[in-house]
Amino acid sequence: MIRSHQRTPVQIRPVRITRHYTKHADGSVLIECGDTKVICTASISEQVPPFLKGRAQGWLTAEYGMLPGSTNTRMQREAAKGKQSGRTMEIQRLIGRSLRAVVDLTKLGERTIQIDCDVIQADGGTRTASITGAFVALHDAIEKLIYQQLIETTPINDHVAAISVGMHQGVPVLDLDYVEDSSCDTDMNVVMTGNLGIVEVQGTAEGSAFNRKELDMMLDMAQQGIQELIALQKKALMTE
Amino acid sequence: MIRSHQRTPVQIRPVRITRHYTKHADGSVLIECGDTKVICTASISEQVPPFLKGRAQGWLTAEYGMLPGSTNTRMQREAAKGKQSGRTMEIQRLIGRSLRAVVDLTKLGERTIQIDCDVIQADGGTRTASITGAFVALHDAIEKLIYQQLIETTPINDHVAAISVGMHQGVPVLDLDYVEDSSCDTDMNVVMTGNLGIVEVQGTAEGSAFNRKELDMMLDMAQQGIQELIALQKKALMTE
Amino acid sequence: MIRSHQRTPVQIRPVRITRHYTKHADGSVLIECGDTKVICTASISEQVPPFLKGRAQGWLTAEYGMLPGSTNTRMQREAAKGKQSGRTMEIQRLIGRSLRAVVDLTKLGERTIQIDCDVIQADGGTRTASITGAFVALHDAIEKLIYQQLIETTPINDHVAAISVGMHQGVPVLDLDYVEDSSCDTDMNVVMTGNLGIVEVQGTAEGSAFNRKELDMMLDMAQQGIQELIALQKKALMTE
Amino acid sequence: MIRSHQRTPVQIRPVRITRHYTKHADGSVLIECGDTKVICTASISEQVPPFLKGRAQGWLTAEYGMLPGSTNTRMQREAAKGKQSGRTMEIQRLIGRSLRAVVDLTKLGERTIQIDCDVIQADGGTRTASITGAFVALHDAIEKLIYQQLIETTPINDHVAAISVGMHQGVPVLDLDYVEDSSCDTDMNVVMTGNLGIVEVQGTAEGSAFNRKELDMMLDMAQQGIQELIALQKKALMTE
Amino acid sequence: MIRSHQRTPVQIRPVRITRHYTKHADGSVLIECGDTKVICTASISEQVPPFLKGRAQGWLTAEYGMLPGSTNTRMQREAAKGKQSGRTMEIQRLIGRSLRAVVDLTKLGERTIQIDCDVIQADGGTRTASITGAFVALHDAIEKLIYQQLIETTPINDHVAAISVGMHQGVPVLDLDYVEDSSCDTDMNVVMTGNLGIVEVQGTAEGSAFNRKELDMMLDMAQQGIQELIALQKKALMTE
Amino acid sequence: MIRSHQRTPVQIRPVRITRHYTKHADGSVLIECGDTKVICTASISEQVPPFLKGRAQGWLTAEYGMLPGSTNTRMQREAAKGKQSGRTMEIQRLIGRSLRAVVDLTKLGERTIQIDCDVIQADGGTRTASITGAFVALHDAIEKLIYQQLIETTPINDHVAAISVGMHQGVPVLDLDYVEDSSCDTDMNVVMTGNLGIVEVQGTAEGSAFNRKELDMMLDMAQQGIQELIALQKKALMTE
Repeated sequence: MIRSHQRTPVQIRPVRITRHYTKHADGSVLIECGDTKVICTASISEQVPPFLKGRAQGWLTAEYGMLPGSTNTRMQREAAKGKQSGRTMEIQRLIGRSLRAVVDLTKLGERTIQIDCDVIQADGGTRTASITGAFVALHDAIEKLIYQQLIETTPINDHVAAISVGMHQGVPVLDLDYVEDSSCDTDMNVVMTGNLGIVEVQGTAEGSAFNRKELDMMLDMAQQGIQELIALQKKALMTE
Repeated sequence: MIRSHQRTPVQIRPVRITRHYTKHADGSVLIECGDTKVICTASISEQVPPFLKGRAQGWLTAEYGMLPGSTNTRMQREAAKGKQSGRTMEIQRLIGRSLRAVVDLTKLGERTIQIDCDVIQADGGTRTASITGAFVALHDAIEKLIYQQLIETTPINDHVAAISVGMHQGVPVLDLDYVEDSSCDTDMNVVMTGNLGIVEVQGTAEGSAFNRKELDMMLDMAQQGIQELIALQKKALMTE
Repeated sequence: MIRSHQRTPVQIRPVRITRHYTKHADGSVLIECGDTKVICTASISEQVPPFLKGRAQGWLTAEYGMLPGSTNTRMQREAAKGKQSGRTMEIQRLIGRSLRAVVDLTKLGERTIQIDCDVIQADGGTRTASITGAFVALHDAIEKLIYQQLIETTPINDHVAAISVGMHQGVPVLDLDYVEDSSCDTDMNVVMTGNLGIVEVQGTAEGSAFNRKELDMMLDMAQQGIQELIALQKKALMTE
Repeated sequence: MIRSHQRTPVQIRPVRITRHYTKHADGSVLIECGDTKVICTASISEQVPPFLKGRAQGWLTAEYGMLPGSTNTRMQREAAKGKQSGRTMEIQRLIGRSLRAVVDLTKLGERTIQIDCDVIQADGGTRTASITGAFVALHDAIEKLIYQQLIETTPINDHVAAISVGMHQGVPVLDLDYVEDSSCDTDMNVVMTGNLGIVEVQGTAEGSAFNRKELDMMLDMAQQGIQELIALQKKALMTE
Repeated sequence: MIRSHQRTPVQIRPVRITRHYTKHADGSVLIECGDTKVICTASISEQVPPFLKGRAQGWLTAEYGMLPGSTNTRMQREAAKGKQSGRTMEIQRLIGRSLRAVVDLTKLGERTIQIDCDVIQADGGTRTASITGAFVALHDAIEKLIYQQLIETTPINDHVAAISVGMHQGVPVLDLDYVEDSSCDTDMNVVMTGNLGIVEVQGTAEGSAFNRKELDMMLDMAQQGIQELIALQKKALMTE
Repeated sequence: MIRSHQRTPVQIRPVRITRHYTKHADGSVLIECGDTKVICTASISEQVPPFLKGRAQGWLTAEYGMLPGSTNTRMQREAAKGKQSGRTMEIQRLIGRSLRAVVDLTKLGERTIQIDCDVIQADGGTRTASITGAFVALHDAIEKLIYQQLIETTPINDHVAAISVGMHQGVPVLDLDYVEDSSCDTDMNVVMTGNLGIVEVQGTAEGSAFNRKELDMMLDMAQQGIQELIALQKKALMTE
């Protein structure tokens, strides 16, 4: 397998994180992982959903979408179809859970952070890029709350990032692009914190099942990739 | 933690598999895992979805639902709301993938097997019970095809079953019921074949992240539970 | 016409009523009329719909569904289609009206009883079986309210049950199964109380119209069937 | 009870049937029953629904709607809500069945007649007025087919009309307007043919149940009303 | 081009405005422009949408629909399809904006006027006829408010009416019927007040673009037509 | 009124057109008009909608959307709401009509060009920016068809671009941003070709009506702006 960007199996794609990408949202990031490009925004509203009213805590939720022209052959627009696909729902629930894992909602106050991840160009790994990018947008939105003295200390207690990993003819391969994803026997998405705590593991055999040894190799590789991604998040957050 | 049915952390709930539970579907199973009860049916139709037409292969897909009265407080009926929730979509996609992992669709001919899993009483683990039960319904539907001489050999190449496992105060616990599920820090669903191949691993930290050692303990325990479930599937399939 | 279960034209199918069938709902009944099997639950909630707020009375409403695998050829799941069919709506409105006819809503207090009738196996007469079974589930839910001292006296003022009757080649036939229903010229559903008051009569000519004498014969037969069903309800309610 | 239009209990409201009311549909009728006004159109299309293809027969189906401003307090527009109510579905199914009862679909050829009944002013009895008026629109559409030599003989084998009847303080009352409908204990809709064959009987107790004697009185009265309505249909059809 | 009703290019079709057309709505008008016939009603409700609560002003909004049988070949019913088309949405937004242009909402009090325009026969110009007719219905509803002493002075500060105009082979043509509309290169809808203020201009090239001189000719002609329509509105409002 | 970017009333905002912005669509353009940023893609599919089958011509249609985070306060996602707003429908119909005005569909062959305009940052004039940018994306898609020798000559027969113009305290103002748009009495969108043919004029009085003289001033100004935009389109298309 010859990989895009002349990568070895264990190398991630070039990543670029652009903060303040659009001007209206409280946090706004363009994340590019190779040819996958996602706009991640975080919008704060001063209210919580009904089930949390009066509980002295906040909420964080996420939505995900793909521009119709972002994919190889044009995707039907979900707004025009009148419903979101199962895949979309699954991904946006994953993004929300992943970010909530590093946010202490009781420190957020009675407000909601709405994350939106919209893919403008897709080349594999859109859900993991969304998580990695959305964390930075979330960070910026929280900084704004602190700057406005609406909260005193950050409710964020760790970094979180995500990456995909697969098995290709017995070899584990990190950060799959679209072509690689299609040719792998197993596709696994891993979400981890800066502390190397696992937030989500979702491994799926496409074709034949995988064994524990393969699972371990994939997890090792994913951990390494996530450490690199978190270093890149930190670097992006250092500049103003 | 005192467990229902006086179980130790590593014990699964009592399982009962009733075949030929209803009379119309090609395969029909009631699976009871403790107080969780799911009707699993498999219905064969002599056509495939458009994207597979003329490809000399079959298809298998699954749908999942809960009766409104199956849960602790009545759930809203999805047919009345006019759409399926993200959770429902996620679960039915998982059931479909899990069963496809043990079926050679090229041996099925141009026909579709539709799996339906409908929860009539919920007490945790409805998605894993659905997979375990649906495998038996699928088996019966395939037997019918063979009996009718529509196919010669079975396209099923292994058993598949699923179980949940969680971490409770540092201790791994197998086959969580509803109360246990709510009190665990981590919830993991594992789908495995008779060969101990992993088909799906979905581990989610609810609260704090988990580490590799915890993951390993949970996987060990899940493997043991799945071996028991597959033994029960085999026993159920031996009787006529 | 040779009838299933060796029945004469005036005999109803064997009926079995299982109370406390599932554990969460306030009332839960499995009713089996021959091969037609319906789970009927009654769930109480401590609120009324907006149009009844502050009127010192309760409400009772019903929903109906069929499991996809319950019918001869698999039915499409209404939750997946995103809407309920006209037939479903018609049936659930009928169930609600029929039960409200024997309930004094002012004695219920400001609470709602939600009836759910879900067909797990269909062989004709699912709507009438639903009414007959739902009455027993309703009864159990009301008993629970009384036991909890939330109300003092029962708002139920009579039994209610329902049966179908048809004309087959000039002969009236009671309690039609699916095959009979398809071959009859007329299909009539009758809902009556223990006092032999008529709550609903819905007679439809399929093919040629029927005359007053035929209508009378069918009503006589229906009345007899309903008396038997109410006796069975009473018997089921006597055991604990 | 003082009735509108100084009617005795057994008198129907003044009826006016205007044929060729609008110009595009193949049959178009405005029926006015007292203050209830319904536009009924019949539109022919040269195809049948998929389930009837190649069966050498036609189809007839009906839809029903109410203009938002047709009712006492404005009704929400169903097109804006995005779905038809259960009541609408029930009524349009009734209209379709009633008209199919007098049409020999095998004589229609492979074409569909679409009936539309749209209430422009509602004052009780909109569903029965729809049936009575739609029969005339259907008749005109069929005449057009014969005139165009697309069919040779009419597939219509009898008249059909409908009326409501209720019990008010022990007295049967014919052709209820909105105020009367609200004050009656029982509401029954009867659909009959010119031959006095019963096509549909739908009697519903609102409040207390009714007995067989009351049912008989109501049916007698309905029969008389329907005979008058059919005479009025015949008169309307005689003029050109 | 030979025009219907022997019209010259600059003549509008015969117009008939019938007030008090139906009895329930606060204002109810049938407007007939040639063969185009629209029922326009205005219904008042004593509340405003949430975004206007507590702002001491009212609201006016409009909905538009076509009866399925109103068009040349039967249109699908939007309530049955479950959504309104883009065309419908565009038209109802236009009607609402046009009427709001002549209403001082602060003088209306915290109430909403809901306009409904339902086409019962279509022959071109349904949206412009809707605006012209709806103004009269609005006027009657406002008169009722004044008569009931709910408001003191009318919030209506001018008349408003609308007409279509097109370019046909280099010649401007006023008030297009359906056949003319289909053969024109340009279709323009103009909404003007009694003061000759322009409220809306919507010109669309169907085929080739038009130039400024053509635009001017069309606007001149539209202005003349609107003056005639406003004279007809005034005449209709003078009678009681 | 102090304008953004120190503009005089007649100056348009700085425009940047980036071609080949994303890699999958056949044409892909980012257009930036001041702070309004829209991704416009053109996707070709080798089929036409059913109503054009066998007519030896192609089709062009457009869809429009806004990212939830693109606006001042977060907009609800239309895919999540399950339907497109009236505004969205109106805009996408306008974009489609505008581009079809300069395309000879008979020269396109039996294929469809799908335009997608997705706003990633909104600051007024999103519909006009969409048209101006989509033309360039369309151009690139057509070039690809020619390059692939699927068509011989371009079906595009002129440029098309669009701009907004308004009246602010008696002064016409070109290319309104969001703040200006809110403070103007009149908002007009004009779509013109390179030949200065008018494709669409949509002028709406918000507040008080406008007169013919004002209309003329606005059209003059719009024409000037569109000439500038078309020059910028040409410049962008010259580079490769």
